[in-house]
Amino acid sequence: MALLENLQWRYATKKYDPNKKIAQADINNIVEAARLAPTSSGLQQFRIIVISNQELKEKIVPIAYGQQIVADASHLLVFAAWDQYTAERIDTIYDYTTDERGLPRGRFNSYTDKLKNLYLQQSPDKNFEHTARQAYIGLGLAIAAAAELKIDSTPMEGFNNEELDKLLNLKEKGLKSVLMLPLGHRDTEGDWLLSMKKVRNPKEEFAIEL
Amino acid sequence: MALLENLQWRYATKKYDPNKKIAQADINNIVEAARLAPTSSGLQQFRIIVISNQELKEKIVPIAYGQQIVADASHLLVFAAWDQYTAERIDTIYDYTTDERGLPRGRFNSYTDKLKNLYLQQSPDKNFEHTARQAYIGLGLAIAAAAELKIDSTPMEGFNNEELDKLLNLKEKGLKSVLMLPLGHRDTEGDWLLSMKKVRNPKEEFAIEL
Repeated sequence: MALLENLQWRYATKKYDPNKKIAQADINNIVEAARLAPTSSGLQQFRIIVISNQELKEKIVPIAYGQQIVADASHLLVFAAWDQYTAERIDTIYDYTTDERGLPRGRFNSYTDKLKNLYLQQSPDKNFEHTARQAYIGLGLAIAAAAELKIDSTPMEGFNNEELDKLLNLKEKGLKSVLMLPLGHRDTEGDWLLSMKKVRNPKEEFAIEL
Repeated sequence: MALLENLQWRYATKKYDPNKKIAQADINNIVEAARLAPTSSGLQQFRIIVISNQELKEKIVPIAYGQQIVADASHLLVFAAWDQYTAERIDTIYDYTTDERGLPRGRFNSYTDKLKNLYLQQSPDKNFEHTARQAYIGLGLAIAAAAELKIDSTPMEGFNNEELDKLLNLKEKGLKSVLMLPLGHRDTEGDWLLSMKKVRNPKEEFAIEL
């Protein structure tokens, strides 16, 4: 299976060759895989910030606790999720969906009313916990797309979210950062992880058959 | 790109043909894609419960608020994550990893000490929020694997997690349910969503280039 071979090929790259850049068409395809991700109730609660500007990547290195891969990678994707649910956001996406499907707006009102009843009584923090989870689905599909294109990637949670939100003006977009994904090509000489065996829980422990 | 074509093919199937069963080899490949998912610090904080027993699937229908797809699907995957972090769990996976790589145990002690300092002072609830997120990466890869095999799937958050945990004895495994993924083949006559256009945020809104 192509996907399994691609997942075996990939690893969390620890050192990038700063001279190898990724073509825009490939970046677009990786972003497209994340855009096609399913999300809870189809609300598409996350966005991707695509950063290729070298100066901006370098500003992010200290925010990522000095991790140089952020600057050495060709591109940096930042996955950011809705900071909370609002009735307007829910309506906007459902209005767009019904328009695109040639259905009357309001066609899914009984469903969106349920969503509003559920989410609007929850705290913004709890809502963000839910929107943030959806970004991880997109991350999974983005790394699979990158691997199909033989592009290296490094899923990262280790950075100061609040500082990154400030730098990228995410608050005014109604977003909060969740994940980063540097993309580029491995430095085959300098990456300590490259030669190491990929290790996962044994199948019989990972899957419990009932 | 194969992945993009597969993601365009898939949709959140709303009605399954209960007579079409999936071969065990295909189930294994879908589970394998999730097993290969990257996870935070490589801790592999989630597991998959694979359910094909009809009686058990039917017991889950009321726990999933009456959604019949749970019983009609050929198989039901339940994604469950560690209910919290413990020093033992962190050590177990790192000991296994160093053993598999032929490295001395303790090789990553300075890193695992940091993880323990971070997680063990957090509440179990906050820790579970983190472990649960990792399961969504696996979900993304599982639906991509299913789509490559032309197997239908339906990502589901809508069920009573506590009741499902009880039914599947997840607590004694140190796990809590996060997601369900019915797998099977669509009932092409009875699925209202099948004929509808797949709608996502427009590219220019989804991706913000900086």
